[in-house]
Amino acid sequence: MSLKIVTVAPRSALHVEEVEIRGHIIDSLILPKVLDLITGLGGSFLIKQIVIGQERFDPSHALIEVQADSAEKLLAILQQISDHGAVATVLQDCQLTPADMDGAFPEGFYSSTNQRTEVRIAGNWLAVNDQEMDCGVVISADRAQARCVAMTDVRRGDLVVSGHAGVRVLPEERAADRQLFGFMGSSVSTEKPKGVAIREIAHELLRTRAEGGRTLLVGGPAIVHTGSAGHISQMIRDGLIDVLFAGNALATHDIEQSLFGTSLGIHLSHGLPAEAGHEHHLRAINRIRRAGGIRPAVTQGILTSGIMYECVQNHVDYLLAGSIRDDGPLPDVITDTLEAQREMRKRIHGVTFCLMIATALHSIAVGNLLPAWVKVVCVDINPSTVIKLSDRGTFQTVGLVTDVEPFLRALVQELQAERSGAR
Amino acid sequence: MSLKIVTVAPRSALHVEEVEIRGHIIDSLILPKVLDLITGLGGSFLIKQIVIGQERFDPSHALIEVQADSAEKLLAILQQISDHGAVATVLQDCQLTPADMDGAFPEGFYSSTNQRTEVRIAGNWLAVNDQEMDCGVVISADRAQARCVAMTDVRRGDLVVSGHAGVRVLPEERAADRQLFGFMGSSVSTEKPKGVAIREIAHELLRTRAEGGRTLLVGGPAIVHTGSAGHISQMIRDGLIDVLFAGNALATHDIEQSLFGTSLGIHLSHGLPAEAGHEHHLRAINRIRRAGGIRPAVTQGILTSGIMYECVQNHVDYLLAGSIRDDGPLPDVITDTLEAQREMRKRIHGVTFCLMIATALHSIAVGNLLPAWVKVVCVDINPSTVIKLSDRGTFQTVGLVTDVEPFLRALVQELQAERSGAR
Amino acid sequence: MSLKIVTVAPRSALHVEEVEIRGHIIDSLILPKVLDLITGLGGSFLIKQIVIGQERFDPSHALIEVQADSAEKLLAILQQISDHGAVATVLQDCQLTPADMDGAFPEGFYSSTNQRTEVRIAGNWLAVNDQEMDCGVVISADRAQARCVAMTDVRRGDLVVSGHAGVRVLPEERAADRQLFGFMGSSVSTEKPKGVAIREIAHELLRTRAEGGRTLLVGGPAIVHTGSAGHISQMIRDGLIDVLFAGNALATHDIEQSLFGTSLGIHLSHGLPAEAGHEHHLRAINRIRRAGGIRPAVTQGILTSGIMYECVQNHVDYLLAGSIRDDGPLPDVITDTLEAQREMRKRIHGVTFCLMIATALHSIAVGNLLPAWVKVVCVDINPSTVIKLSDRGTFQTVGLVTDVEPFLRALVQELQAERSGAR
Amino acid sequence: MSLKIVTVAPRSALHVEEVEIRGHIIDSLILPKVLDLITGLGGSFLIKQIVIGQERFDPSHALIEVQADSAEKLLAILQQISDHGAVATVLQDCQLTPADMDGAFPEGFYSSTNQRTEVRIAGNWLAVNDQEMDCGVVISADRAQARCVAMTDVRRGDLVVSGHAGVRVLPEERAADRQLFGFMGSSVSTEKPKGVAIREIAHELLRTRAEGGRTLLVGGPAIVHTGSAGHISQMIRDGLIDVLFAGNALATHDIEQSLFGTSLGIHLSHGLPAEAGHEHHLRAINRIRRAGGIRPAVTQGILTSGIMYECVQNHVDYLLAGSIRDDGPLPDVITDTLEAQREMRKRIHGVTFCLMIATALHSIAVGNLLPAWVKVVCVDINPSTVIKLSDRGTFQTVGLVTDVEPFLRALVQELQAERSGAR
Repeated sequence: MSLKIVTVAPRSALHVEEVEIRGHIIDSLILPKVLDLITGLGGSFLIKQIVIGQERFDPSHALIEVQADSAEKLLAILQQISDHGAVATVLQDCQLTPADMDGAFPEGFYSSTNQRTEVRIAGNWLAVNDQEMDCGVVISADRAQARCVAMTDVRRGDLVVSGHAGVRVLPEERAADRQLFGFMGSSVSTEKPKGVAIREIAHELLRTRAEGGRTLLVGGPAIVHTGSAGHISQMIRDGLIDVLFAGNALATHDIEQSLFGTSLGIHLSHGLPAEAGHEHHLRAINRIRRAGGIRPAVTQGILTSGIMYECVQNHVDYLLAGSIRDDGPLPDVITDTLEAQREMRKRIHGVTFCLMIATALHSIAVGNLLPAWVKVVCVDINPSTVIKLSDRGTFQTVGLVTDVEPFLRALVQELQAERSGAR
Repeated sequence: MSLKIVTVAPRSALHVEEVEIRGHIIDSLILPKVLDLITGLGGSFLIKQIVIGQERFDPSHALIEVQADSAEKLLAILQQISDHGAVATVLQDCQLTPADMDGAFPEGFYSSTNQRTEVRIAGNWLAVNDQEMDCGVVISADRAQARCVAMTDVRRGDLVVSGHAGVRVLPEERAADRQLFGFMGSSVSTEKPKGVAIREIAHELLRTRAEGGRTLLVGGPAIVHTGSAGHISQMIRDGLIDVLFAGNALATHDIEQSLFGTSLGIHLSHGLPAEAGHEHHLRAINRIRRAGGIRPAVTQGILTSGIMYECVQNHVDYLLAGSIRDDGPLPDVITDTLEAQREMRKRIHGVTFCLMIATALHSIAVGNLLPAWVKVVCVDINPSTVIKLSDRGTFQTVGLVTDVEPFLRALVQELQAERSGAR
Repeated sequence: MSLKIVTVAPRSALHVEEVEIRGHIIDSLILPKVLDLITGLGGSFLIKQIVIGQERFDPSHALIEVQADSAEKLLAILQQISDHGAVATVLQDCQLTPADMDGAFPEGFYSSTNQRTEVRIAGNWLAVNDQEMDCGVVISADRAQARCVAMTDVRRGDLVVSGHAGVRVLPEERAADRQLFGFMGSSVSTEKPKGVAIREIAHELLRTRAEGGRTLLVGGPAIVHTGSAGHISQMIRDGLIDVLFAGNALATHDIEQSLFGTSLGIHLSHGLPAEAGHEHHLRAINRIRRAGGIRPAVTQGILTSGIMYECVQNHVDYLLAGSIRDDGPLPDVITDTLEAQREMRKRIHGVTFCLMIATALHSIAVGNLLPAWVKVVCVDINPSTVIKLSDRGTFQTVGLVTDVEPFLRALVQELQAERSGAR
Repeated sequence: MSLKIVTVAPRSALHVEEVEIRGHIIDSLILPKVLDLITGLGGSFLIKQIVIGQERFDPSHALIEVQADSAEKLLAILQQISDHGAVATVLQDCQLTPADMDGAFPEGFYSSTNQRTEVRIAGNWLAVNDQEMDCGVVISADRAQARCVAMTDVRRGDLVVSGHAGVRVLPEERAADRQLFGFMGSSVSTEKPKGVAIREIAHELLRTRAEGGRTLLVGGPAIVHTGSAGHISQMIRDGLIDVLFAGNALATHDIEQSLFGTSLGIHLSHGLPAEAGHEHHLRAINRIRRAGGIRPAVTQGILTSGIMYECVQNHVDYLLAGSIRDDGPLPDVITDTLEAQREMRKRIHGVTFCLMIATALHSIAVGNLLPAWVKVVCVDINPSTVIKLSDRGTFQTVGLVTDVEPFLRALVQELQAERSGAR
């Protein structure tokens, strides 16, 4: 379907600018959001044209005149709505300011979102690489490349995009997502049919592998404490995990389990504390340190089972990031948090699906780095992890409030059922 | 602003019906919701006219042709979208079916929402009284009155509205609400500025009293356990509570505190368990039963302080509803749950503001009975209470995840500050 | 092992009484608790003899002289420690006071615990029947029988035990329990190996059936919402559930699922909302009301699957207790809460194992009624349910903070594995 | 009181060792715990002498013969019970093994607890300095000093204590604690009288200052998000905080609030999102980076209010530890986690009271470092933080599940009331 709209009574306005929005602007709530921002920020609007797609997933298009009583207000509005995909129709190039020092942007720098973004250079729209929220955008010296750069990584002389002019954001459309994980929404309700969710996640893991995507697992130590290391090991052996991000704790307790049969000193086979078990994790770290690291420990035959062992044997690209609550840590842990972030950035290239399990710290850290088009499922028995992830801008997250071990047990069964053609 | 829309390419459709939506249809997300329902249920649509209010709170208007490939599908769509305020433009009267037995509706009965509703009788729209979700609508014998009736209360021969034809729903518009409690939204995040929320609730309580509205407090025993009975007592003495709904537990522990200084056996003055304190609540109930009830106990000088005492002294209309976990109970408790529901229905007439504190059971029960235009604030340290309330249709609820005692302490201070003109 | 202890320096004390404790008094922390209470309440003590069992589960025995500087203080101490099994060695009969009115005890009545209790009548210790916390103890007219009576059920003239003299409590010993569910303890930690817990619960269910015990399931509607009705149905068909206590909500949504395939309007097969699905539960109730109840609906072929259907077909003794948040309710629901309590009391006779799933209200209600020697496992994703249950005196509860559907799925698998001799 | 115990029937045992326990061995549950461990690990025991203190807080004393059927089992038992204060009566020196490499202990190293510990060198008991859990104990070359050393800090040639022989642990006795924070216990119940807890914390803060102790505040960003930065600022100005441990987030949002009036982009004065507010925290960090750090920003007049400003002005020793979820970070943040741990160790010397607010990461990290005799209060609205802290061995923690802003508001009022002599 397609409509033409004729304005009946345009009203005069001191400062105006025409913007355009494309996509599922009604269905995905972009239009209401933009109109709400305009009026909420003290402006007014005129819908000059609106074309609404007839079919559920057909794109729509709207032309809106934004009006404000001062140039400053107009600018503030334009900046805000540009993050939701409203692009000025009268186009100008983005503004570039050279960084005047290392490790900080010039005041007024454009602050990136995690949505696909383009900047206009010499009349052409240039896609921004390494899309990541809360960065600046730096243009290469030859003005042929644009990429997101973290504050610490900017160098004096870098050409940094300033303001919002000449920047356009192409928001992910939620509509498409709904096909896959629609029913889960962003809700944190625990009263939803869980079997369906588990089946969809199994399907997504298999689809990712089949289509040559990459799956990133971000996991916390509760995976081991709850007795789920075997489930993850199975998934690794089945080639379903390409990258693992975790901390010292997951690796330590996994190795503790392999060496001593306990996690935090609790026997995983019968649930009772081991004698002197509270020391096991420390002795496990010490032994790996003596061996020179996880990989050498596998080679030397010290470590013969568990998640980390399977990572080594199955060439999973694992990264252990340090935190101030670490004991030890294991020699593989990157203790500098900036260095760990840089390494994570490298490894998320090509990741298309991310499963976060039972870790608030690592989930939020990875959520900060992921572009909005990477699907994210966050599993935690504590609703607050899911809530925080969304509060911090990783909107694409599908949250599942459930218990790690029974969830992973069921997931592994679904994976087997789906592959064996049982469904 | 006002626009005229000319359809460019209407497409043929087997079954069509034109519907109309009015109100803040874009701003309050009604239009996207309706369009989403139409396509989600397998239909298609044609926007024949759209007029969008220019100012933030100006009403809009849309004329939509709903299309489906079967009459049944069209009917299903029309039923669904009618709950969101979409009304057929070709009007017909509602259909009436006499109840064929006591205590049950005829199959196909119209099931009510908690939104303002009108039914069309002999060409006229009749407002439905006693609006309540999950009821039927019964028309008086003279066809001059319509009201919501609970399933147990329908009597053989009652004229019950069937189907959705001739029924129109006038949804509350969320936009207006935003003025007052906007920032809290339906979020259950604990990371919000709490001082602002407390100030707004204080303001709302004072405004309700000033404007002659009625405030209903729905409270659980944690009010007493956390040491907050004094704060509620103060609010009652200040005339800020008109109606109290609670259970046996709140009243029992309040009386336990008054008689023994403990709640669930814990001394509220120093937090330590009393000797034989676990028996105190039982002895408190026994003493009130011996006196013949709360009111007689006040008259006889047995009960001289606390929430229930203040209710009696300040003519607060209190209702204690029974539950299967009650000890005793107190003689005032209505142990039949249907009888308790009927009494609650009587007392919510005229209630304009409802404060729910620390009780999932009573909050959901009252939420079921309240029409959508009564403002509801639900305070609980457990996010699940707030989530459940919204899941069950009490959409207007503003949730505040916080701790009862410090919250009420701060609320009483805000009330004093606001009245003393300190702000 | 057996020791004799000779007091070195007994000190004078104004008011003294000798008490005796038997059982695992050190291992199960009874002795420390009693000594702590004595000194905490201002008294002092002299351990006159102590015999400590050599083997882990051998009983021990202690003879303690309690000392206080006033008769009142001594009495208060004796009352408190008697609840923990300390019995005066100089024995006296219990004191009886006739009830002076219906529905209330005389002041000073003995308030019962949920532990095995005996009262001394004419020099003989008489076991108390129907043991239940927060009741009085009534002696039959012929003084040959003693039983716990709820406050509402006492009748004028009943002989009610007063004070603590002549009453002795025989506490359950936690030591024995540890064998079975030891590792779970009372902890609410979510970071425990869940597979072990599930295996132990499966084992307990099978053992109960094999030994002729009775298993009571107390369940909330989240069982249905999360898509777990099939798991419970399987357990019923396998003869593992003897009694079901639930509310209107579990039965309603179970029937909604059977009739419409939805729970609270959400399709359990694909997790998406059904059209007009929010009305389904109401239509389900209406249809059962029209049929005259659940059993007639099964007979008439209206209800052909689900938990309630299986209860009818497999002669599970089910009880639906009303609450004020009920829609409808179903005709089978007992709407009077006192009547519901009386019916629950009848049905818990002979129950030896109780599994509580996803309901705070019913779990606490049933916990109030159960004697301390019935094993209780409480499963909820919300830790607060487990915490409240213990706070309210159902100390024997083993709490498992996990998600209902994956938990029940794994439990059914464990049951099958254990029966098939797979382990 | 004092008793002599004569063994009646000692039984033969293959391997025996006599141990001694002192302190409140019954009252504080040490004796039951030790006996439980002995039998739980497969040994048996003979209580050869027991002297029980008469007054509530008088120390007791027990002499126990531990028996096991193999030397290995006996050793395992002795190791376990030594952590609870059971010391062999036949004394031997601790065993020392030189470290054979940097950064790892020799296998079999003694793993420390957070309790006061002594090691026996040349017949003398030497107190261990820098007591910290999960470390090794290193003896100085002249054998005159012993101290806890983290795994990463051990150097080749260091003399490391091996095994448990010659090590004795002097557990903190919980009895004494009960005086102060007794009622709160380790429970995570939300249904406790909160006013009492707040009053006790206020009292402890003032007592610490009056007695020359040091108070460490460990805080998360929710302090700022909930609008509580002003309360903490007040406490700093009043000299109640000596040391602050936090992360980049608390400092960033505190500075964001000072510069822009928002926290995570939410206006703290009215709770509504600011225009482009999600960028504010990034612009705040950038501005501080441009200034060269927090202290320079204060000096240059850029930062003029808030927690960090008050720290600078009032000479609070603050430490910001990095994490992988940090944006920026601020120049003051220590990004290497091992370096941050070392700096924290330095600053906790002399700390006598620790208040942890709304941060799981930093609370657990600091809990790992603190000796057991430093009082810890952990405040969080999420019970899981408190549960995790105890699970990980910081047993002395008193948990308070409450909401940050109303809690701190009430705390500041209590502090003012107590100082003004209002109570």
